[in-house]
Amino acid sequence: MTRKGILFIISGPSGVGKGTIKDAVLAKITDMEVSISATTREPRSGETDGRDYFFVDEDQFRQLIDNDELLEWANVYNNMYGTPRQFVEEKLTRGQDVILEIDIQGAFQVKARKPEGAFIFIAPPSMEELSLRLATRGKDTPQSIKLRLAACKWEMEQVRHYDYMVLNHELKTAVDTVCAIITAERCKVKNFNLERDMIDSSFNQGPNGSST
Amino acid sequence: MTRKGILFIISGPSGVGKGTIKDAVLAKITDMEVSISATTREPRSGETDGRDYFFVDEDQFRQLIDNDELLEWANVYNNMYGTPRQFVEEKLTRGQDVILEIDIQGAFQVKARKPEGAFIFIAPPSMEELSLRLATRGKDTPQSIKLRLAACKWEMEQVRHYDYMVLNHELKTAVDTVCAIITAERCKVKNFNLERDMIDSSFNQGPNGSST
Repeated sequence: MTRKGILFIISGPSGVGKGTIKDAVLAKITDMEVSISATTREPRSGETDGRDYFFVDEDQFRQLIDNDELLEWANVYNNMYGTPRQFVEEKLTRGQDVILEIDIQGAFQVKARKPEGAFIFIAPPSMEELSLRLATRGKDTPQSIKLRLAACKWEMEQVRHYDYMVLNHELKTAVDTVCAIITAERCKVKNFNLERDMIDSSFNQGPNGSST
Repeated sequence: MTRKGILFIISGPSGVGKGTIKDAVLAKITDMEVSISATTREPRSGETDGRDYFFVDEDQFRQLIDNDELLEWANVYNNMYGTPRQFVEEKLTRGQDVILEIDIQGAFQVKARKPEGAFIFIAPPSMEELSLRLATRGKDTPQSIKLRLAACKWEMEQVRHYDYMVLNHELKTAVDTVCAIITAERCKVKNFNLERDMIDSSFNQGPNGSST
């Protein structure tokens, strides 16, 4: 039995640990593609075009936007970042799953274009815990932490637009839970090519086995 | 965060191993209630009313049907069997999950009354494998095996009415996959009492942790 590729969106408030979770999930689930962003910023040492990012100039980026070739995009400190639609669509068409880690605003843009994706919201165990994490990771000033927590209240309310909510209370449990969601989504009947495959009743290859 | 209870329906062709899978899942996931059937047949030695079955007489069973108090029912060798709705509804209302193992006809009846349930179709790895299993478990005559295989073709086509398909190629993998589906369903945002719980932003208790 063959099936359609599934787009998994890992999203949530900043500082919630979605990047760490995505990396740990990818270490456990090997048959999963990662979406590669396009960006106008300069490559840093060690970064390779087509592996870390698709490096483009501003004109090229504008054209991607104008041609609706980005699933989402954002301007971050005067650099443009976006998710090329073609890269994702090609994988999905081949039956390969794609994972995309993204903030909440970006997830909304993706949902408008790919509502059939599996939208996973990573939630902090509590506001206090998130506050502590932001303070200890040392990337943020006290002022920016205050702003982030205020934003977090709004962000938490956006969970209602997602399919799944996973609490990042303990990393291993959160990673196992996201892996379980991936396994379950891979068993969804709506993702199988039933019409095409069932005619000869050759249901010899299936969803299981390729999970964690 | 509190959530609604979820009704899990484990179903599929006869001989596919859904009973074995259900028992193995219950051994791994302890916070799961099992639906108890009502029946008109006589209790066997060691069976307890309210634990193994709800034992009722034919008049009582008729009344359950007439009052739409059964999620499904069937007549098997002149004994009536059915799934009392009240027992299931009480558990779900309390936020407890319920598992129900049932044949395909029964699953259709349940779906008409509880379309929001998670319908899991257990599929045989192949017709040949199912044929072999039916022959070796010794419950069936060659003639009844032939009839069962003919029925199985129709039964396999019914997978399109289910939410998930799990291949029972290897028991452990099938059990792990059903457990993953249960974990994933427990993270579904639509099952959380968001409106009630989010007002005080007390998202301290969540879906994870109570999985496998």
